Amino acid sequence: MNKILFTMVAMSVALSVNAKRQDAEPIKIIEPVVGLDQQKVELGKMLWFEPRLSASNTISCNSCHNVAKGGVDNLPSSIGHKWAIGPINSPTVLNSDLNFVQFWNGRAKDLQEQAAGPIENPKEMAFTHDLAIGTLKSIPQYQQWFKKAYGSENFTIAEVTDAIATFEKTLRTPNSKFDKWLKGDDSALTVDQLEGYALFKQKGCIACHSGPLAGGQMYQKMGLVKAFKTDNPDIGRAAITGKEFDKYVFKVPTLRNVELTYPYFHDGSVWDLQEAVEVMADIQLGQSLTKSESRKITAFLKSLTGEQPPITLPHLPPSTHSTTRPQI
Amino acid sequence: MNKILFTMVAMSVALSVNAKRQDAEPIKIIEPVVGLDQQKVELGKMLWFEPRLSASNTISCNSCHNVAKGGVDNLPSSIGHKWAIGPINSPTVLNSDLNFVQFWNGRAKDLQEQAAGPIENPKEMAFTHDLAIGTLKSIPQYQQWFKKAYGSENFTIAEVTDAIATFEKTLRTPNSKFDKWLKGDDSALTVDQLEGYALFKQKGCIACHSGPLAGGQMYQKMGLVKAFKTDNPDIGRAAITGKEFDKYVFKVPTLRNVELTYPYFHDGSVWDLQEAVEVMADIQLGQSLTKSESRKITAFLKSLTGEQPPITLPHLPPSTHSTTRPQI
Repeated sequence: MNKILFTMVAMSVALSVNAKRQDAEPIKIIEPVVGLDQQKVELGKMLWFEPRLSASNTISCNSCHNVAKGGVDNLPSSIGHKWAIGPINSPTVLNSDLNFVQFWNGRAKDLQEQAAGPIENPKEMAFTHDLAIGTLKSIPQYQQWFKKAYGSENFTIAEVTDAIATFEKTLRTPNSKFDKWLKGDDSALTVDQLEGYALFKQKGCIACHSGPLAGGQMYQKMGLVKAFKTDNPDIGRAAITGKEFDKYVFKVPTLRNVELTYPYFHDGSVWDLQEAVEVMADIQLGQSLTKSESRKITAFLKSLTGEQPPITLPHLPPSTHSTTRPQI
Repeated sequence: MNKILFTMVAMSVALSVNAKRQDAEPIKIIEPVVGLDQQKVELGKMLWFEPRLSASNTISCNSCHNVAKGGVDNLPSSIGHKWAIGPINSPTVLNSDLNFVQFWNGRAKDLQEQAAGPIENPKEMAFTHDLAIGTLKSIPQYQQWFKKAYGSENFTIAEVTDAIATFEKTLRTPNSKFDKWLKGDDSALTVDQLEGYALFKQKGCIACHSGPLAGGQMYQKMGLVKAFKTDNPDIGRAAITGKEFDKYVFKVPTLRNVELTYPYFHDGSVWDLQEAVEVMADIQLGQSLTKSESRKITAFLKSLTGEQPPITLPHLPPSTHSTTRPQI
């Protein structure tokens, strides 16, 4: 009886400590999304891997946001239709529903709005929404699946992008070492990682990289203290707002799974995570990190790699006589 | 007791009928491969989806032999490095271990030998074996996995292609409607499909399309009775043997999952299965099929679509400082 009481008290203390840690820390735990409509998820997964949403029938969402590779393609910028090179680094799809806006410049308010973009971007999938819808409607299985998920065979790009966005919401990466530590497992982080996290907060990185994504919650100027040197002509938010002070202002990217999402920055110019940490400290915070400091912060950042989503490949239904042929 | 006896006798008769059907029919049942080394299978699956085996780090085996799409890309010929268009239609990887030789012209004796080709083909993955091995060796997880599967970290292209080939052997598609019928399920085929199969044998299609693959067991001239009209310059086996009589001689392709593997023929010129059936009857057998006949044979061919292999996407380990950067 004493033993049980002791255990209960110990558990209660531990829970209280954990609750305090979770509440106190500026980076928050990531959990899987629950309650999603499974028919929309399954349909969205089909569409995610569907190369017939591109003009050539070879490029799918997964081509540039490869869920086998941290949700990215690990290229400075993606390769699209006819080997067109995209203007900016492809952000990870993992945990992307937690971003406050989508795209580097925030031009889409959510994942559904984002998903419509690449399909008709001539440098990406190079299709049109009408042709994409026509392709899907020419395939009886898609007609049935859309009817099941959305109640009608007369679907539009809105249902296509809603299904894709619903699937994307399943792509959370819980149970990173850092999240285990947040939940109270003191052994989850190494001494270097703990020191790295302390430095991450002390140096000011946390000012932008906080919340469940360790980023993705605000815009910030790239080159806040010192100009960022790049060949990439993207002017960031200014392209949307037309305002001078939005020049080179981008959404702060997530640091979740950053170990997997190289190369770094919107221009994909830096391949080494420790180097990226040093550049950020320098141009965003005006701080010169010692090698030991940047090494420890890098060690901490690697603790943000979570469990990658388990995905069974869908089997896509065949085209029919009325399906648009690939344009190569 | 009588009931049990009756059941046993009935089962025995059924088994005997089934055994006779299986023995008598020229197309044989496909079953999953058993006894494969699971460490090699898992490693091979990683390599199958590994775009870092290509110069651009964007093309994997699965790009042209997409297991979400019947093991093909559904293009007349594949798109490779820098949007190069390949010389010939990509054959399906499904059940491909059952082919008597690999490639359309049989230039590889087995899947292991085949797998080495595309990696260094400048129009496909455009890499070199040395660079591919260097890339894999630069990644500690691959070092460990090769050591586990092959006993050494000092692996070569032979182990890489062996692992890929071992994974490919798992890509069988059992339990097609036709196979169920072969096993004795009389209700598995429709009347049209049964009539189509009878026509398939009567008209002589079976002369080349037999065995478990309904093909893949011999070479045959494309245009045996009448010349095949094509813009494709491939001369088939003659490119290997240098012999005039091997001109336009190709491996007979499998008809397993042919519903999914359009467009048809080595030049990928025909998109409609019924049309492909009519062309074959005409130029290979000198037979003019009625629309009803070609429709029924097509219905039979669709009964050869088997269960597509269930595949969980691997999660690929990140590159390191010494990994070759993508060449775009």
